[in-house]
Amino acid sequence: MLRFSLCARDGQARAGTLETPHGAVPTPAFMAVATLGGLKGVTVQQAEELGQGVVLGNTYHLALRPGAERVRALGGLHQFCGWRGPMLTDSGGYQVFSLARNRTITDDGVTFRNHLDGGLLTLTPEESIRIQRLLGADIIMAFDECPPADAKREYVAACNVRTAQWLARSVAAWRAPGPYGGPAEQALYAIVQGGLHRDLREASAADCLRHDLPGYAIGGLAVGESAPERNQVLDWIAPILPVERPRYLMGVGTPLDLVEAVSRGIDQFDCVLPTRMGRHGIAYTDGGPLRVKRAEFAEDPRPIDDTPSSAARVSRGYLHHLCKTGEHLGGVLLSLHNLAYYRRLMARIRVAIRHGRFQAFADTFRAGYKDDVSDLEVPAGDESDRAQAPKSDKKSTARPAVTGDA
Amino acid sequence: MLRFSLCARDGQARAGTLETPHGAVPTPAFMAVATLGGLKGVTVQQAEELGQGVVLGNTYHLALRPGAERVRALGGLHQFCGWRGPMLTDSGGYQVFSLARNRTITDDGVTFRNHLDGGLLTLTPEESIRIQRLLGADIIMAFDECPPADAKREYVAACNVRTAQWLARSVAAWRAPGPYGGPAEQALYAIVQGGLHRDLREASAADCLRHDLPGYAIGGLAVGESAPERNQVLDWIAPILPVERPRYLMGVGTPLDLVEAVSRGIDQFDCVLPTRMGRHGIAYTDGGPLRVKRAEFAEDPRPIDDTPSSAARVSRGYLHHLCKTGEHLGGVLLSLHNLAYYRRLMARIRVAIRHGRFQAFADTFRAGYKDDVSDLEVPAGDESDRAQAPKSDKKSTARPAVTGDA
Repeated sequence: MLRFSLCARDGQARAGTLETPHGAVPTPAFMAVATLGGLKGVTVQQAEELGQGVVLGNTYHLALRPGAERVRALGGLHQFCGWRGPMLTDSGGYQVFSLARNRTITDDGVTFRNHLDGGLLTLTPEESIRIQRLLGADIIMAFDECPPADAKREYVAACNVRTAQWLARSVAAWRAPGPYGGPAEQALYAIVQGGLHRDLREASAADCLRHDLPGYAIGGLAVGESAPERNQVLDWIAPILPVERPRYLMGVGTPLDLVEAVSRGIDQFDCVLPTRMGRHGIAYTDGGPLRVKRAEFAEDPRPIDDTPSSAARVSRGYLHHLCKTGEHLGGVLLSLHNLAYYRRLMARIRVAIRHGRFQAFADTFRAGYKDDVSDLEVPAGDESDRAQAPKSDKKSTARPAVTGDA
Repeated sequence: MLRFSLCARDGQARAGTLETPHGAVPTPAFMAVATLGGLKGVTVQQAEELGQGVVLGNTYHLALRPGAERVRALGGLHQFCGWRGPMLTDSGGYQVFSLARNRTITDDGVTFRNHLDGGLLTLTPEESIRIQRLLGADIIMAFDECPPADAKREYVAACNVRTAQWLARSVAAWRAPGPYGGPAEQALYAIVQGGLHRDLREASAADCLRHDLPGYAIGGLAVGESAPERNQVLDWIAPILPVERPRYLMGVGTPLDLVEAVSRGIDQFDCVLPTRMGRHGIAYTDGGPLRVKRAEFAEDPRPIDDTPSSAARVSRGYLHHLCKTGEHLGGVLLSLHNLAYYRRLMARIRVAIRHGRFQAFADTFRAGYKDDVSDLEVPAGDESDRAQAPKSDKKSTARPAVTGDA
């Protein structure tokens, strides 16, 4: 069973504890993404050492490779990847957005022409829950339809209807007896959709709340909207979610995005940025992302910052060298730094909330954080993964290509 | 200063201790390769945890990128890469072989048209020692000329002459006062060449012994010869090297190669195989290399073997999945396994020698080890790095392409 308890509130920001069958994590919590059952280049031992809380796997990707039945045959997702702490799986609903060119939606579900060999994979609410039961994560997600930020209002309204129907079917499948999983072992979260329209967001939230579930997610963000638009949606929706349940903002985001979302009452996050941007030579700091490949760092003897990680023992000059020469170790060290940075940022946020000084913390953070990587080009890859572009406040319609992590 | 002491002998096999300014390592010792100053995908913390002894950097590669002066500006090779234990640098002489199509040899030295941008890099004995002083490893190597296994006798004889002259110049440069390094901080090893000809090997050994150096290496192997040919050279040369000095067999090899060489009196080894083959889906075991991508492992719930490493926590099925899906984490975990396997193999060898049962250990090992990866194709890459093909006993004239580690 999932148990969530709050220990402090400061404005809308909340600090608490999420207890799962695989251990408790303090919230607000950042969840690292292990699309295919492994963090990119980072071992579970390293993740443990840096205090990682929850690790997230992707239903769509794991269903394709190696297949949910095979994961189950190898003991379920925890045993499969060797992670002993809490896990969450998404439902595949995000791929309705990210694989928009390769899927067909009906009221029953979604058929994907998969990004690997063009074979067909059909996900319905029942099938998504069945797969997530086989995988066996502590937290599972309802199957939803995620529209893009620039979708027309009529389309978002139609998504809302399907998402509500699919939620009811997801809940029924989750409650049904079966050989694996079930409400006692796995907590189901509903996902609020509704795009950038207040009434549609509120209607979707009402659909979700009807089911009295262990947790609520806000989806359909980090899909091309601007930061102010996203924050606006959080301002609308977080206050109408039940105080005593965890709130999970899906697919977000940069360190500044997390601070903004915590200030609006969010408890859980996931994002590929720490590992994906690490692989592309970016180190997150309180001053904003550092592009380690820049010539100015070639002879810089300082460590990235004072974040304790495996990267703390080497200089920016060394990391610059590894990234410039294409050594995977550079991406590994920057991923470790970024995961450690995110973990410590969440710890600092929790301390600030508990001491009633989160607003001051957030103000200081906003003033110091300069994001200049919005123009960063990352190599083209499959678009199937959850990823958020590092972006300025300008509205972006294109999302960057993604190179493999979800 | 380097100090070497033997604590046990068993037949030709020797167990001892090599003391360096950065700590002592028990011998026989396997040295992992960090071509550009970093183990491939493996952090220095992980290397420490698995008990890695000596780490090797490559003069040619580091001279090109980031440049020896830059490494020195960042504190020298130890501080640059964060490794606190002993280090060794090669001299660049191996690239005379591996970059044969892109270099010009004169009696003064070698000019390379480098593999990155076609620019010229000239290495002479003096320049190689100057670079190695700037890098600051505990053990440095004389600059030599490494002929291929199929070189004509006349060519090998000419190489011998140059190698002897270059050794004398290397020694003079090493002994000369200067701002960095010197005999008190860095131990110089000579390199015995001479191909597959007994008299030329013996003549080269005599050239080396004339200088009374802290250690002696056997070079010019793992360059296309068969295992019996290599073992024959060791049978000729190891007995004429001084008992009280460490003997280093360069660029070798598979676990079985190491057992064979230890049985012939070798104390130190380096090879890229643990990390390179790990990246290509190979796990070394007492039974020989496992090709983890093979379908038979897809649902295998067992760990690779009982080697303690980060890979011990997951199944062959999981590693199969990571390798099949191209996740770098697969290569990282297999590299960690292989380095841990090599480290433990050396520890088992040392115990066997100290207990006077090395011959039985070697016989058992030979009987159990089946190498079926001699036909493994690895992607083409630059040919500049030290690497040995996993091979059968058949003479091979072609070496496999190498993909980045030295």
